[in-house]
Amino acid sequence: MQNTQVKLMKRPVGEPTNDCWKIEDAELPEINDGEVLVKTLYLSIDPAMRGWMNASRSYIKPVEIGDVMRALGIGEVVDSKDDNFKKGDFVSGNTGVQEYASLPAKELIKVDPSFVDLPVYLGTLGMSGMTAYFGILDTGLPKEGETVVVSGAAGSVGSVVGQIAKIKGCRVVGIAGGKDKCDYVVNELGFDACVDYKEDGLRKNLAKACPSGVDVYFDNVGGEILDTMLTLINKRARIVICGAISQYNATESSGPKNYLSLLVNRARMEGIVVFDNIANYGKAAKEMGGWIAAGKLNANYHVEEGGVKAFHETLMKLFSGANTGKMVLKVA
Amino acid sequence: MQNTQVKLMKRPVGEPTNDCWKIEDAELPEINDGEVLVKTLYLSIDPAMRGWMNASRSYIKPVEIGDVMRALGIGEVVDSKDDNFKKGDFVSGNTGVQEYASLPAKELIKVDPSFVDLPVYLGTLGMSGMTAYFGILDTGLPKEGETVVVSGAAGSVGSVVGQIAKIKGCRVVGIAGGKDKCDYVVNELGFDACVDYKEDGLRKNLAKACPSGVDVYFDNVGGEILDTMLTLINKRARIVICGAISQYNATESSGPKNYLSLLVNRARMEGIVVFDNIANYGKAAKEMGGWIAAGKLNANYHVEEGGVKAFHETLMKLFSGANTGKMVLKVA
Repeated sequence: MQNTQVKLMKRPVGEPTNDCWKIEDAELPEINDGEVLVKTLYLSIDPAMRGWMNASRSYIKPVEIGDVMRALGIGEVVDSKDDNFKKGDFVSGNTGVQEYASLPAKELIKVDPSFVDLPVYLGTLGMSGMTAYFGILDTGLPKEGETVVVSGAAGSVGSVVGQIAKIKGCRVVGIAGGKDKCDYVVNELGFDACVDYKEDGLRKNLAKACPSGVDVYFDNVGGEILDTMLTLINKRARIVICGAISQYNATESSGPKNYLSLLVNRARMEGIVVFDNIANYGKAAKEMGGWIAAGKLNANYHVEEGGVKAFHETLMKLFSGANTGKMVLKVA
Repeated sequence: MQNTQVKLMKRPVGEPTNDCWKIEDAELPEINDGEVLVKTLYLSIDPAMRGWMNASRSYIKPVEIGDVMRALGIGEVVDSKDDNFKKGDFVSGNTGVQEYASLPAKELIKVDPSFVDLPVYLGTLGMSGMTAYFGILDTGLPKEGETVVVSGAAGSVGSVVGQIAKIKGCRVVGIAGGKDKCDYVVNELGFDACVDYKEDGLRKNLAKACPSGVDVYFDNVGGEILDTMLTLINKRARIVICGAISQYNATESSGPKNYLSLLVNRARMEGIVVFDNIANYGKAAKEMGGWIAAGKLNANYHVEEGGVKAFHETLMKLFSGANTGKMVLKVA
């Protein structure tokens, strides 16, 4: 058996190109005591991956040139030298973009395919769902009756943010690209409204969708949308900075020109990193699992086929906004 | 007797010009029941005045064209139709840029020239001192041993911010323009260090002055300095947005390009407006008065002579950074 791997060969300037990667067939890894051999079933495809390709340390160290690209995955245990895991178990862990991974047992979490579909453990009950849960609740601090706006509303984080804000009794307005996504956000996810940023009149359309102004803005995109939202916030608004997908491939970044709206409105802009909440993931998963079971939380995901060889094109689809819900690459 | 007044005649684009103002001699105002006639002694000259000249409503309504320019002042009561005030009392209130003002008694606060010099009621115990006090304590949340950086460190707000942070046991680093101001900030105000932003190597000099990084940054200036500070903050840092004197006369504003440092560092940027704390001014003045009396707080101010006719040039001196401590215009 062979293990097809995707390795980082070059740090991109701007948008990643296909020659950043080398696809190689390696031998199946050996496992030592305390390790588990995992066969990758699904990989989580995330905007954060772009940051991991840079040389500079962010909230996590960069992927080194020549190393297998970092990725969270769901897999099946095919061999184990640890008493806590046996063949046939399903696990979540840092598999990387490869078909098989030898991983320390203590870094794996068992997942149950009878509770929710396996890809949900990469999305709503994975990193993006945790980001949404802690970001909106602990930093956004939404109160019943307030207006919450979220960009990237059809994406893995935004879709969960908005649904949690609805559960908390807020008016929830999404921002997404294109009519199909906006329809999905309103009809499938139950947002009160969704504004298409590709249409003309972004500010006017947002103002119309938020007749009482904006109390919480959850930002996944940065750029012009963040700047526009700064002109619509209410006094003491909270802006959660979760990401800036519009900026990740930009070679020259632009800042929010209207940031002095924070002063006029005594408002706050605060960044979040999901790993800070790792101790509370279990509690959050339990609460969100309950909402999924009760039909209050739509745990949508988008599966691309093609295995690890399709990694580059799947990542690029993420940046072009092809997906609704969590983007997942099926490996086996 | 005549009442010389300075009226706003034109809204400036960019830097205010002399023709924004008309200087007129009016009759002394009449006073009605419940009103007090105040002779202006000192006027507070503030960066915020630039914002009041714009047509757009900020945290306070604009000055209307043809109206006497808004200004806080200290004056002496020369006539009173209110039982709480008598001739010879000293008061603080919204006198405007004029020699005499008829003001409702309920909007005046009595001040005591035997406690501190009268101009101190416009500075350390006035709007700028209150801005500093609530901004650094309630929003900056400095903890003993943390590093606090403040820009405009020789100015009315910055000088108080830094001294309060010293009282709270922090390492305090100022940013100011020119060697004289930096010497003043270190030698007279007791900051641990002060970086001259007019010298080359701003980031390197700041990094050297903050060997443990920056936990609180109190921003009075915006622009490049804010952007540089964003690259030096520690995890969970608090950036207090108090003003942006570098931007007030700019016709095209620039945003903080490095704002994603908030994300990486789970940091916060929050705006403040002093008027929100009006109910607690008395408590703050008492505490700061105690610090002044104990020699812990240097309540410095800078008096310009020339009366209301010198208003325009005094305001321009403020923007060019000519003052250390609170800028005050002596009227009588």
